Amino acid sequence: MPECVFCAIVAGDSPAAIVAETDDLLALLDVRPVSTGHTLVVPKVHAARLSELDDALGARMFALGHRLARAAQAGPLHADGTNLVVNDGRAAFQTVDHVHLHVIPRFAGDKRALLGRLLRRRPRTSDGAAALLREGLAD
Amino acid sequence: MPECVFCAIVAGDSPAAIVAETDDLLALLDVRPVSTGHTLVVPKVHAARLSELDDALGARMFALGHRLARAAQAGPLHADGTNLVVNDGRAAFQTVDHVHLHVIPRFAGDKRALLGRLLRRRPRTSDGAAALLREGLAD
Repeated sequence: MPECVFCAIVAGDSPAAIVAETDDLLALLDVRPVSTGHTLVVPKVHAARLSELDDALGARMFALGHRLARAAQAGPLHADGTNLVVNDGRAAFQTVDHVHLHVIPRFAGDKRALLGRLLRRRPRTSDGAAALLREGLAD
Repeated sequence: MPECVFCAIVAGDSPAAIVAETDDLLALLDVRPVSTGHTLVVPKVHAARLSELDDALGARMFALGHRLARAAQAGPLHADGTNLVVNDGRAAFQTVDHVHLHVIPRFAGDKRALLGRLLRRRPRTSDGAAALLREGLAD
């Protein structure tokens, strides 16, 4: 089993709530979400840092995040906004050494809740958010 | 003069510290930086929200941010990490209604300074950061 948690998910050795999949990307729910529907877009190939990630694959990673942002807002999750975030390097709060793009659906007035969840990251159930995002993507 | 501050810069009606330019993108220093070298990648065409932004142009916006992240870390700015951030919508802290990607160079131990600057955004001189980033891009 790969040591990298995202590589283990890509290999099918660890479970995940999959939101979308392409030839070279996987989108899955964050297990410690800071908002409902908090999703990670993960390149299937291992690259620890942006400096190791192929430019074209990085662009496709963002493009899928862009689609997910639209799905979160236009679809049945009814988000009011989205943060798209890459944390590259320990100095920038990167915690898993495999590049990933956070797609964080935002809801009007959720600032305090978000900050609380950021300060105390812990596992939460997905409340069907993956299904709502998939439905938004299909529209 | 356009009402949108980024459109005014693109039109040449407002000054900016330009870091990079392509056919359809401009990268410029944020006038209220949260870290040294804080740069915004701005599509030249006006799109208020991600939902209005062409997918391919969004991918190119991220690709330039990816290059800038590399330049900030491998070049003479000597950053230790980078945050790449899009805030889409008021609920997600978007303050200028023209899509932009924040490229935030990070330096080991700068967390407290960054939070302070985030809480109190104010104009700062660039300290030659644009030149250091351009030099990093040229390498």
